[in-house]
Amino acid sequence: MPTVRLDLSYDGTDFRGYAKQPDVRTVQSELERALDHRFGPVETTVAGRTDAGVHARHQVVSFVVDRPIDLDAAQRSLNQLLPDDIVVTSIATAPEGFSARFSATSRQYRYVILNQRLPDPFLRRVSWHVADDLDAFAMNQAARLMVGEHDFASFCRKAPGRSTVRTVTSAKWTEPQAAELRFEIDGSSFCHQMVRSVVALCVDVGRGLVDVDDVGAIRDARDRNEARGAAPPHGLTLWRIEY
Amino acid sequence: MPTVRLDLSYDGTDFRGYAKQPDVRTVQSELERALDHRFGPVETTVAGRTDAGVHARHQVVSFVVDRPIDLDAAQRSLNQLLPDDIVVTSIATAPEGFSARFSATSRQYRYVILNQRLPDPFLRRVSWHVADDLDAFAMNQAARLMVGEHDFASFCRKAPGRSTVRTVTSAKWTEPQAAELRFEIDGSSFCHQMVRSVVALCVDVGRGLVDVDDVGAIRDARDRNEARGAAPPHGLTLWRIEY
Repeated sequence: MPTVRLDLSYDGTDFRGYAKQPDVRTVQSELERALDHRFGPVETTVAGRTDAGVHARHQVVSFVVDRPIDLDAAQRSLNQLLPDDIVVTSIATAPEGFSARFSATSRQYRYVILNQRLPDPFLRRVSWHVADDLDAFAMNQAARLMVGEHDFASFCRKAPGRSTVRTVTSAKWTEPQAAELRFEIDGSSFCHQMVRSVVALCVDVGRGLVDVDDVGAIRDARDRNEARGAAPPHGLTLWRIEY
Repeated sequence: MPTVRLDLSYDGTDFRGYAKQPDVRTVQSELERALDHRFGPVETTVAGRTDAGVHARHQVVSFVVDRPIDLDAAQRSLNQLLPDDIVVTSIATAPEGFSARFSATSRQYRYVILNQRLPDPFLRRVSWHVADDLDAFAMNQAARLMVGEHDFASFCRKAPGRSTVRTVTSAKWTEPQAAELRFEIDGSSFCHQMVRSVVALCVDVGRGLVDVDDVGAIRDARDRNEARGAAPPHGLTLWRIEY
């Protein structure tokens, strides 16, 4: 019973998120339709469930098949079966017991802000347009306060019975080119809406609406009402999973 | 009667081209609806009519209004009225007699090819994915043969009574980054499908299907059957208009 690891890339714009739901277009439903066509029904596990509109430059899915498969032929066939907003970037057999979700040791998300007066029609699907002046230095100070092990309940959608303690290993804002601000955050895992909620807080710090000296207290309040909502999904991309 | 010059940028993916047609979504129809809402009915002239799926990083439109206008307020209002795949990047009053079309002295188009084994879901709307190995040196030799004044009938959709003689001032392929091949062509104007037909020929030279020594004869045949069809529209962008 070989375990298969699929690495994927998708433009999340036209999906109602990763996870299967009845009657809507999701990444999982498109993927499982293609897998079913090629292998028969399989149960898949995913590294990071992305919300509606969120993209993945790198996503990983695992599943078990009942016979050895021709990897190259399977990749070609899946890419023909899938719509053009999902691409299987690689396929491999994985060690027995491999789980795309539980074997992952770290995940990186990126968030892109287009910071200029006018929107850009070519970036509207993959960035959040913020016309206000932003103080990138203060945003970086706020980001640094997320690093370490914390209870991130202030930034997470409530999921009763689930811990909201997470370890963030790195969080920073960079300016890779004019008018672009990019957030990169690394950690073992993230709870639901955590990255977008951290981005929203950083942006309000950048706008001068929240003092960076208050960020530590907001983080430790463990109260979602203390935070600043969630940044829009289309600026967010699941960037890299490590095992 | 002030003449107004609008500079625009649009993602052409979801338009059936620039020019107004009944019952389909076009850039001109969306733009004129917004202009009509702001100024009442106006007649517009455009620098470069783009085909369905073709983009514009820089497009220019001119029209005459019956009273002086507040330019900043008009730009803000038009950008609110327009869908988010069209952006008015600037608005100015132009000298009397200015025509976006006839006053233009040069136009640049760019065409992007993604040259790698796998497609990329994030580039699929703005590039042509070619998996075959391409010889960029030979493609550049073919491109250079387009420079100068020629009758480009081999590369143009027939338009009876219209000349297909054009002057190309520059045409070259560059590799701005790994797996990307970019064509840049400059000229006073281009006939219908000319750029995409030149790209298709260059790509077949790059694939080794056409010998670069035959390109001059194909160009001079003035016969569309001698050429290699047209490259897909979504790789093409109207890049810059000069006056």
